[in-house]
Amino acid sequence: MSTDAVLARIDADLPAATERLFELLRIPSISTDPAYRDACRSAAEWLVADLASIGVDASLRDTPGHPMVVGHVEGDGPHVLFYGHYDVQPVDPLELWDRDPFDPAIENTEHGQVIRARGASDDKGQLMTFVEACRAFHAEHGRMPCHITFFFEGEEESGSPSLVPFLHENAEELQADIALICDTGLFDAKTPGIVTMLRGLLGEEIEIQGPTKDLHSGFFGGAAMNPIRVLTRILGALHDDDGRVAVPGFYDGVPDLDPALRSQWDGLGFDAAAFLGGVGLSAPAGERDRTPLEQIWSRPTAEINGIHGGYTGAGFKTVLPARASAKVSFRLVGSQDPHAIRESFRDWVRAQVPDDCKVTFHGHGASPASVMSTDHPAFERARQALSAEWPGEAAFVGAGGSIPVAGHFKTILGMDAMLIGFAQSDDQIHSPNEKYDVDSFHRGIRSWARILDALQ
Amino acid sequence: MSTDAVLARIDADLPAATERLFELLRIPSISTDPAYRDACRSAAEWLVADLASIGVDASLRDTPGHPMVVGHVEGDGPHVLFYGHYDVQPVDPLELWDRDPFDPAIENTEHGQVIRARGASDDKGQLMTFVEACRAFHAEHGRMPCHITFFFEGEEESGSPSLVPFLHENAEELQADIALICDTGLFDAKTPGIVTMLRGLLGEEIEIQGPTKDLHSGFFGGAAMNPIRVLTRILGALHDDDGRVAVPGFYDGVPDLDPALRSQWDGLGFDAAAFLGGVGLSAPAGERDRTPLEQIWSRPTAEINGIHGGYTGAGFKTVLPARASAKVSFRLVGSQDPHAIRESFRDWVRAQVPDDCKVTFHGHGASPASVMSTDHPAFERARQALSAEWPGEAAFVGAGGSIPVAGHFKTILGMDAMLIGFAQSDDQIHSPNEKYDVDSFHRGIRSWARILDALQ
Repeated sequence: MSTDAVLARIDADLPAATERLFELLRIPSISTDPAYRDACRSAAEWLVADLASIGVDASLRDTPGHPMVVGHVEGDGPHVLFYGHYDVQPVDPLELWDRDPFDPAIENTEHGQVIRARGASDDKGQLMTFVEACRAFHAEHGRMPCHITFFFEGEEESGSPSLVPFLHENAEELQADIALICDTGLFDAKTPGIVTMLRGLLGEEIEIQGPTKDLHSGFFGGAAMNPIRVLTRILGALHDDDGRVAVPGFYDGVPDLDPALRSQWDGLGFDAAAFLGGVGLSAPAGERDRTPLEQIWSRPTAEINGIHGGYTGAGFKTVLPARASAKVSFRLVGSQDPHAIRESFRDWVRAQVPDDCKVTFHGHGASPASVMSTDHPAFERARQALSAEWPGEAAFVGAGGSIPVAGHFKTILGMDAMLIGFAQSDDQIHSPNEKYDVDSFHRGIRSWARILDALQ
Repeated sequence: MSTDAVLARIDADLPAATERLFELLRIPSISTDPAYRDACRSAAEWLVADLASIGVDASLRDTPGHPMVVGHVEGDGPHVLFYGHYDVQPVDPLELWDRDPFDPAIENTEHGQVIRARGASDDKGQLMTFVEACRAFHAEHGRMPCHITFFFEGEEESGSPSLVPFLHENAEELQADIALICDTGLFDAKTPGIVTMLRGLLGEEIEIQGPTKDLHSGFFGGAAMNPIRVLTRILGALHDDDGRVAVPGFYDGVPDLDPALRSQWDGLGFDAAAFLGGVGLSAPAGERDRTPLEQIWSRPTAEINGIHGGYTGAGFKTVLPARASAKVSFRLVGSQDPHAIRESFRDWVRAQVPDDCKVTFHGHGASPASVMSTDHPAFERARQALSAEWPGEAAFVGAGGSIPVAGHFKTILGMDAMLIGFAQSDDQIHSPNEKYDVDSFHRGIRSWARILDALQ
């Protein structure tokens, strides 16, 4: 097939592609809010119809939650599974938006044109880059360059409760040679990245109970143990002076960074000052002997995500509270074992709680890190295809966050995933005034056309 | 005058005295809630009328807030100023009360009869012990044993905003030889206490700002400084391993306990196990080398009264918050200087805040400790009078809390205060089902009769 013809068609079709994306963006498919249940279904139905229009055998699949969309189309090359999600985050606080979040528009900014709407970047715009690439092949050649299974979810923004059961029940139908996921970002404005490492995540909630009821700090202060004192003392020791996590055994299973990958990362010219400066910081806060890129991609972390105890309203109350609590999460890498770390953390906390206090724990999820095997030839082919489209050479990168679907594809379907996306770091996903660069949308479509061509 | 006759009259009059207290308790004088403004005024008017009925020249004095009640009556002995407050705390949560908080009743309990109502103990019942003692003198002898000024406030439970201006404006009228304050408790059920030490109070609010906005702990975790980490690290170091406060200079001005007072305290047989056991604790949490009684009466403390940061709702959110804050209070003793400690605390915090974070402070009140000079002969006379009434010998005791009015009498009126009260530790003041023991009310009236007789 001629890729040039497909790319030319993509260029000519951009206004129509944008209008199709606007149709999808106008559907307020907020998955977490039951008030938008019908909208979620409408978004799924819109996608089924759109896939059908490009020759895909697509159908809506009911789940206990919002429906899945599954579509199949034959093609010459290998079999790929493409994943995206059509649901979006809530839009509150609405007053911080400059326009109706479900009335998309092109806006001119100092960094170029953007598509402004909830879901423009996360993930409707990204999902449609792939669909539009397929549409161009269908229009130009009447067939696809690969055998493709489309798989769209409507619950990603609300914890994907139906995903794992659906994968189990439909494992055979969803088999492919490799999964493609479009829900990540560019390395920087000009450089695409293929994510090959995702950190795992372990969540813990701790509650320290001291006295049986709130006390007056005048009557009891000095004699009664204050659970906030206990909690701050423990959590204040969670990192040592070098920024390392103090929980025993925490670094078991953390691999040394592969020298070839380290050298590639060093060549990326990551601008740590700009990265931290963008959020008002200047000094990396992690392990002293690691670069900022290592700190966010290849090193494990401990963060206190929330803490609460006593009186926190206006003014002052001399209360000595009965309890205090905190939420702590760990990002995991390599082969760190989330369950072993959970137990080690709990033992470490228990050892520091005075006899007079009780501690209770509540676990919140435990997923190991994912490391993709880049030996699959698709990785290098995709890297070259991306490099041909973008100003910068595409890189294998890490991602500090956790994208559970990639892990589920591996463990349930036995399939590696290639995560490629075109979001910019200033896309305001999950926040007011979400946007997607028109350039991301346009080059993203062209990127997938090049990748599909390269894979065949 | 014959005290025996006055005491006999008090015994005979107890049912009528209880009914008078009930009249006052039925007035819902909640000072903090504007809906009860008229009720507060009614309570003041009731007191003016009641004082007039026993020969006191009493009047209601308007303030920008709730009115004061001031009354004068001549008498043979020294001039005393008696202070109490007629306002009460809100009653919520109402569903935890076993009866209407403003429908007082006598109830039989396993520890004897109690008067159940909001304000029964704090402070209407206590205030009326003094008024009823005066009534008995008036009825029996037609005159008072001392020259008495009555001074009742209606804003004590809402921060006393009008108190200081009123004291300044009426300083001459309110002059007396000594102030008597009935707003404290018995040392134990059988032993009355005269408070000679009140701890001071210093409140500080700290906010640590890290990044300019909340961050995703996946994208930034490891590289961005988390303000909760900074805050817990600082507050976790507020006490050393021996329970001492780590702020430099904190113990400047903390006196050694007078050996005579220490020996008297040792003789009180304070039951630390019962004190802590009543709130589910067993081990004193203060300085290792101090007894629990010292820890709450004569030693300074630091308590974290509240802490907040990040996500604290249900479930989990992998947020790396922009800010975290805490409220910290210090109880002060001896001649500790609240302003010097405030500055030392702030310097100590600032020195621990990483360059990338900002800290802001907000001060909440700073009052030094009050130490009464027990050289005034009234103290020893009152002690003997109380010892004659109660099973246990009265003691000079400390109080861990802060009673600002005593400090204001000292600084504005130049007058020492003698704090004597008859509340029990289980009176549930500020809580549902507040009560006052009938025995406290009865012996309290008799105690004041004995004290007034002893002072003349």
